Amino acid sequence: MKIAIMTIGDELTSGFVQDANGSFIARRIREAGWRVTEIIAVGDEETTIVATLHRLARENEAVIVTGGLGPTADDKTTAAVARAAGKNLCMDDAVLALLKERFERLRLRWTDNNAKQALFPEGSEILPNPAGSAAGFAVGISKAVIVVVPGVPREAERMIVDGALPLLRRAFGDEREVVISRTIKLFGRTESQIDAVLAGMTEELSGVMVGSYPQFPEIYLRITAWGTDSLAVTGVVDGAVAAVREKLGKYIFGYDDDTIAAVIGRLLVERGGRIAVAESCTGGLITDRLTDVPGSSSYLERGLVVYSNEAKMQLLGVSPETIEVHGAVSAETAREMAAGVRRVAGVDYGCATTGIAGPSGDTEGKPVGTVFVAVAGPEGSAVRRFAFGGERRRIKELTARWTLESVRRFLTGVPIDEE
Amino acid sequence: MKIAIMTIGDELTSGFVQDANGSFIARRIREAGWRVTEIIAVGDEETTIVATLHRLARENEAVIVTGGLGPTADDKTTAAVARAAGKNLCMDDAVLALLKERFERLRLRWTDNNAKQALFPEGSEILPNPAGSAAGFAVGISKAVIVVVPGVPREAERMIVDGALPLLRRAFGDEREVVISRTIKLFGRTESQIDAVLAGMTEELSGVMVGSYPQFPEIYLRITAWGTDSLAVTGVVDGAVAAVREKLGKYIFGYDDDTIAAVIGRLLVERGGRIAVAESCTGGLITDRLTDVPGSSSYLERGLVVYSNEAKMQLLGVSPETIEVHGAVSAETAREMAAGVRRVAGVDYGCATTGIAGPSGDTEGKPVGTVFVAVAGPEGSAVRRFAFGGERRRIKELTARWTLESVRRFLTGVPIDEE
Repeated sequence: MKIAIMTIGDELTSGFVQDANGSFIARRIREAGWRVTEIIAVGDEETTIVATLHRLARENEAVIVTGGLGPTADDKTTAAVARAAGKNLCMDDAVLALLKERFERLRLRWTDNNAKQALFPEGSEILPNPAGSAAGFAVGISKAVIVVVPGVPREAERMIVDGALPLLRRAFGDEREVVISRTIKLFGRTESQIDAVLAGMTEELSGVMVGSYPQFPEIYLRITAWGTDSLAVTGVVDGAVAAVREKLGKYIFGYDDDTIAAVIGRLLVERGGRIAVAESCTGGLITDRLTDVPGSSSYLERGLVVYSNEAKMQLLGVSPETIEVHGAVSAETAREMAAGVRRVAGVDYGCATTGIAGPSGDTEGKPVGTVFVAVAGPEGSAVRRFAFGGERRRIKELTARWTLESVRRFLTGVPIDEE
Repeated sequence: MKIAIMTIGDELTSGFVQDANGSFIARRIREAGWRVTEIIAVGDEETTIVATLHRLARENEAVIVTGGLGPTADDKTTAAVARAAGKNLCMDDAVLALLKERFERLRLRWTDNNAKQALFPEGSEILPNPAGSAAGFAVGISKAVIVVVPGVPREAERMIVDGALPLLRRAFGDEREVVISRTIKLFGRTESQIDAVLAGMTEELSGVMVGSYPQFPEIYLRITAWGTDSLAVTGVVDGAVAAVREKLGKYIFGYDDDTIAAVIGRLLVERGGRIAVAESCTGGLITDRLTDVPGSSSYLERGLVVYSNEAKMQLLGVSPETIEVHGAVSAETAREMAAGVRRVAGVDYGCATTGIAGPSGDTEGKPVGTVFVAVAGPEGSAVRRFAFGGERRRIKELTARWTLESVRRFLTGVPIDEE
């Protein structure tokens, strides 16, 4: 089946915002076994949208449209789709009620222009949006099915997977009734290193499709298989996952919806241990990640962002001699920070970072990107030096992620400095 | 002048790689005063490329094409453009000589398939590529100019700026329009509230285009105007910005590349003041944001994530009675946290949050989403209660952003609890 992807918004054609939807929608369509003929971005201009929809409906069996579903006057997608389909716009009372409910729940003030988001072309099938205010819809133009979802990537992704693809599968039939995917989440290897390993596994992976999706700084491998028998397909996917685990297990931190913070949370809860964090160059990012997990207050005691030397000494008991002799950015300071935060918080584990995020601050022998990560526990401590490249935010992200990885390794008995 | 952007490659339509060229080419075109009608990605299939080129040449005065200029068999762009233009392919001896020279210089082995990169449609104007092996070219299809550059972003960007834009300017004369944009950044009002205000400003905004771009939880308004006289267009944009400032000034925290953290940094540097942060439910997010600004170590002394009551008392000197009588989530605790972190860090300003991010933790009279934000300074302190809705991450983001907003207001003498 041929499918076109159309994204709508002046912010795209003006280059103000880079389209973030076309690519993942194309991936999902490909995983579903269909073909993407084109990904086209046009501005918020009704005549252009209508003309493009007519052409795409002629050349494809389905068109997936994102963007322009907001409540404001410059959002023209719904009206344009209705015009292209030759339909009137009708108010959907159920969606209107949900919208008002949502405003109440989020404690937002209702204004009447928001009712625009409950208007759909007559005869549309509504696609609910569990994460936002703009519902999607599907309607026919000529023989093609037009599926419209909002442009917010987080909302679009969920609605494509849960709404658009099942709808297309129902509309066009699919002999490959059962599609099963699992995501393997890796960290610590580049995409090309992982690719080189996979290239040597053609036999083990012959029955599945493998997609590699870097989500900086992590890499996700999506293993998909199709068939008619659910049990058999699950077996094929599980076999492929096991084969990948055999080769790359050291770098796998989780599966499917796992996050590194949730994995660490599970490990701590299993062990009945609590943790505290001392951050310098990451500026709170490590603790921010850990506290994204519901219930993290049961195992995270405190996080200290100790930017100044005074704070390192006063709050963590780092000795002035250590800072004087080895410097604030050193293995020794990192180790004392981790041990210090563990001690002052009275918990089982402490982790710490100290480094130079840049763009300035490089000193003799320690260029921007030099980072030390330390973890301390009941049986001792470990420290590792890193040399990251790039901009400030990139160095913060890599440092935070490697610190979390070091904690995971420490808790599972793997040396934190193993390559 | 209407220009379309076309990117070519199976890696784009399969979603394996996200297009990185369309967006910056669109920006460059817009800056040059022209209009982008669409950005379209198609696969490496000759008939699709030819059909798309014919359509784009009909609908536009120019088409910028990137990708598919490599030496291998799956790169089909040059052949397809020649076919669409009704031209033969001819070897360019000068380009061939440069190619062989480049191979020698980089100590690469020459194979004859590389000569493919010296083939161009008859009568093309060659665009040199100083950074790579694939030269670009320009050729006519009907009345449109087709400019082709390689897909490697670093090479494409340079060739667009140095080759394609000057060529188009020569081809279409110099009655070039001036396009000027400014972005106004707002916080504290929903998109529809802002839209309702703008709806009443049709007269003040008659000469400009206004786009509204929510970047949760902030809203950006982009004001754009066109014309032939740079001074006049700047005046129109400035006038519109001033009109918006008149109506919505309270909610404007910055312009163009500003971030709230950078704005706070500027205010602190101007005042020669330093700040420290005490976070509970935001878990480090406020400090993370502040430390994204290069040089923030000069005014951010420390950040403390005090999840437990012990940490609040031990690190900030919050009194046990306050927590006992009013609770850890209370205006009184927030105020003592802000004053406490200011005192222990020995700085001019302290800010603090305490709240319930959920999904559990609600207590009598204080449901999930209840948050208190406090700011303390040399002349006293201020506190505000919020009732946020939604998921844990949303509550963290809103709390962090409102705390930063409260700091901005405090530093500029605006009451932090003003609606």
